[in-house]
Amino acid sequence: EICRRLMTEPAAQCLAGFKVLISAGPTREPLDPVRYITNRSSGKMGYALAAAALKAGAKVTLVSGPVSLPSPANVELISVETAAQMHAAVLSEAAEHDIYIGAAAVADYSPVLPEQQKIKKQAGQTTLILQKTRDILAEVAQLPNRPFTVGFAAETHDLEQYALDKLARKKLDMIAANWVGRDLGGFDSEQNALQVFWKNGRKDFAMTDKNHLAEQLIGLIAERMEHKKI
Amino acid sequence: EICRRLMTEPAAQCLAGFKVLISAGPTREPLDPVRYITNRSSGKMGYALAAAALKAGAKVTLVSGPVSLPSPANVELISVETAAQMHAAVLSEAAEHDIYIGAAAVADYSPVLPEQQKIKKQAGQTTLILQKTRDILAEVAQLPNRPFTVGFAAETHDLEQYALDKLARKKLDMIAANWVGRDLGGFDSEQNALQVFWKNGRKDFAMTDKNHLAEQLIGLIAERMEHKKI
Repeated sequence: EICRRLMTEPAAQCLAGFKVLISAGPTREPLDPVRYITNRSSGKMGYALAAAALKAGAKVTLVSGPVSLPSPANVELISVETAAQMHAAVLSEAAEHDIYIGAAAVADYSPVLPEQQKIKKQAGQTTLILQKTRDILAEVAQLPNRPFTVGFAAETHDLEQYALDKLARKKLDMIAANWVGRDLGGFDSEQNALQVFWKNGRKDFAMTDKNHLAEQLIGLIAERMEHKKI
Repeated sequence: EICRRLMTEPAAQCLAGFKVLISAGPTREPLDPVRYITNRSSGKMGYALAAAALKAGAKVTLVSGPVSLPSPANVELISVETAAQMHAAVLSEAAEHDIYIGAAAVADYSPVLPEQQKIKKQAGQTTLILQKTRDILAEVAQLPNRPFTVGFAAETHDLEQYALDKLARKKLDMIAANWVGRDLGGFDSEQNALQVFWKNGRKDFAMTDKNHLAEQLIGLIAERMEHKKI
């Protein structure tokens, strides 16, 4: 009931006493000391979630890839660069937290054996061998004493289908899905809209600024956690 | 003589009446709407060169990849994202300018046919086919009415050898070389040091902040241009 109120009254301390772990931003997967593969991600949604969780009374740990955002006050910030570093940081923290929100855009693939020296231009064409990175979200959800685990899905097509598949396959408690590569919302924007799914449930949040959206999502997470306990 | 003075007195208007074109920042080569390959480059050196050229009295055009720097005042800013867009912007402007300084970290390779939809995770390993991008610096240097053409070389090893080879092979008027991936200087730093080469000449600038370094390099360019005319 307190949590339901949070969705309209963000100041309610509905996560007081809870520890929340949030991952945010992109990762960088080096090809060599100069070049890297990355994802479009400003980190804004993850940082907004950290601020909203703090406002709701939680103790917040933020694992962040490289972003151009100011470090949030009163949040424990762990800065990482690669998917492997983010995996290590999140997995070492997750069991100590009540809630994990995976809002980072972690690289799915990483170059095999990055070169120690800058690669010189050679042939007109070249190929790059990539290997899948470890699945942070799925590994957190498999921990024996797992936190309430929330994933994100950013898709250019078949959003609901991919989100529901990811929710079930990775055994998440909740998934927040948003469109990318469209006119409004997503990684290049101050705004976003979310379709949030859990087992047998769904809630849509309309396009709004990411701070407001984060407060709505934190409220919903608190509400669903209460529900799960009962 | 005025130009030699500029190297200690940066306010001297030694590029008054000249038009300077500068490229800065990284480019992004999309794999799909979400993922891209890029280079480590803050754009600071290019933006500092734009400010220094402006201070020296030049009319400045800045072609910039995506950076987190404020847009400079009194400079014509052309924002681009990919190597192909940077090529198009620089080549359409170069012949109208007296000096071209290629300070951007343009991607050497770009994925063949980026996917229109977000690629889904599949196999444990995958390969990416990359093709060489067009050589902006070499093409500018081959223009019939070419500007005074200055390149940069950022290397992790054999710096002088690569710089001299690039100077000769691309027929540049000057090349400014700096180490990357070391403790001091380069793309992650406010500071840098440069070894500058031209045909039968060389000047070293010691480690200093990028604004001061840019003023020194602009002074040297103005001096070498005078010398070339005579």
